[in-house]
Amino acid sequence: MKKTIGIIGGMGPLATCDLYQKIIEVTKAHSDQEHIRVCIDGNTEIPDRTEAILHGGKDPLPEMVRSAVRLESMGADVLIMPCNTAHYFYKEILPFVKIPFLNMLEETADAAARMGIKKAGLLATDGTVKSEVYKKAFDKQEIPLEIPTEEEQKSVMELIYDGVKAGNDELDTGKFEQVMNNLLSRGAQILILGCTELPVAFKKWKFSQPALDPTLVLASRAVQYLKVEVKDKMKY
Amino acid sequence: MKKTIGIIGGMGPLATCDLYQKIIEVTKAHSDQEHIRVCIDGNTEIPDRTEAILHGGKDPLPEMVRSAVRLESMGADVLIMPCNTAHYFYKEILPFVKIPFLNMLEETADAAARMGIKKAGLLATDGTVKSEVYKKAFDKQEIPLEIPTEEEQKSVMELIYDGVKAGNDELDTGKFEQVMNNLLSRGAQILILGCTELPVAFKKWKFSQPALDPTLVLASRAVQYLKVEVKDKMKY
Repeated sequence: MKKTIGIIGGMGPLATCDLYQKIIEVTKAHSDQEHIRVCIDGNTEIPDRTEAILHGGKDPLPEMVRSAVRLESMGADVLIMPCNTAHYFYKEILPFVKIPFLNMLEETADAAARMGIKKAGLLATDGTVKSEVYKKAFDKQEIPLEIPTEEEQKSVMELIYDGVKAGNDELDTGKFEQVMNNLLSRGAQILILGCTELPVAFKKWKFSQPALDPTLVLASRAVQYLKVEVKDKMKY
Repeated sequence: MKKTIGIIGGMGPLATCDLYQKIIEVTKAHSDQEHIRVCIDGNTEIPDRTEAILHGGKDPLPEMVRSAVRLESMGADVLIMPCNTAHYFYKEILPFVKIPFLNMLEETADAAARMGIKKAGLLATDGTVKSEVYKKAFDKQEIPLEIPTEEEQKSVMELIYDGVKAGNDELDTGKFEQVMNNLLSRGAQILILGCTELPVAFKKWKFSQPALDPTLVLASRAVQYLKVEVKDKMKY
């Protein structure tokens, strides 16, 4: 069978769709047949991850494992998961799968290291920040992460929830831009878009701050992992 | 298991991604968990359909069937396929599956009938026009289809291949718009966007002619088929 990427998806559905689109966009292909095979389990039965981590909500692990096992049986050669917060459970999923499972956060930290980044800034939801999933991945590369202050974090959450998720194009993004500039002035050389809504925000409001999109890194890494060529500008 | 849509995809990958996005957009949901489960086999091993129909190329049926059977084993309750030309093989796939398989073209013709359309215009590739897949679906609803003349069809192909597929935003769309207006003046009340590149073109160039997007119809019909609510404006 053709080399296949398996996506544990549905967390949320639009982020899954965005990853699929980025896999297509990074691939050097001139016909349908030159593209990689992609299998997606957009499993919306997986309970809310932030709810489970911060408030003792229903354990999402069993449904994630069910998706992983099903994708393996569909012929996937490598697994990926387009949800930052879900990576809190990454290690617990591993024993259940027999194929490689790329870690979006570690791939991003590795990409940052290869770019020569000495310090990065993190833009993410409260859940992702508090669970320290990015901190652990960047610690491995010995890249310090600059985190927004409590006050700054409120502006990040406002942009994500009242701006992107609420579909409000009119939101005043001044405070959020100030947060980005603060992180950069505190030494961050690049901003990690650690929430799948943030690449959408960057596109919508045309922010020009230096940023790294983990979904794009993951798409590029997964395609290259299967020895399929990616476009020159899309190599991470 | 949660009700699941199975997508026989990869023909091409971007059209598959577009259908997935439309399924998400039409669904009335306020959280990941309220969305439907969607399983996708983006099977780029399926040979080119136009090549098979018009030039005796490799038979795409076996790979389509393999995807259909795999999606059934993933727990799909209903199958859909976002490729107009691929529907030439629809009837041949049916004996291999035991779950319902919605026909994009028949759903579109049915939607047109419910809208009270007495005559429709077809915008599609040479392969789709010549294989008469749309004509058969609209015949069942007794809705005559206005087809572009040979000269007009060239402008349709130019828009699809030299415009959308080539990513050329600067293409002069005057001739294509003339074709649309010709079809309307010959009595078509609505234009069927019978190629998955055409909704992209409509968005890109902001055409305002009355049009029906089969991918959107299919997304809406599949969600409703599984008794999940769609947004009011998205009911077909």
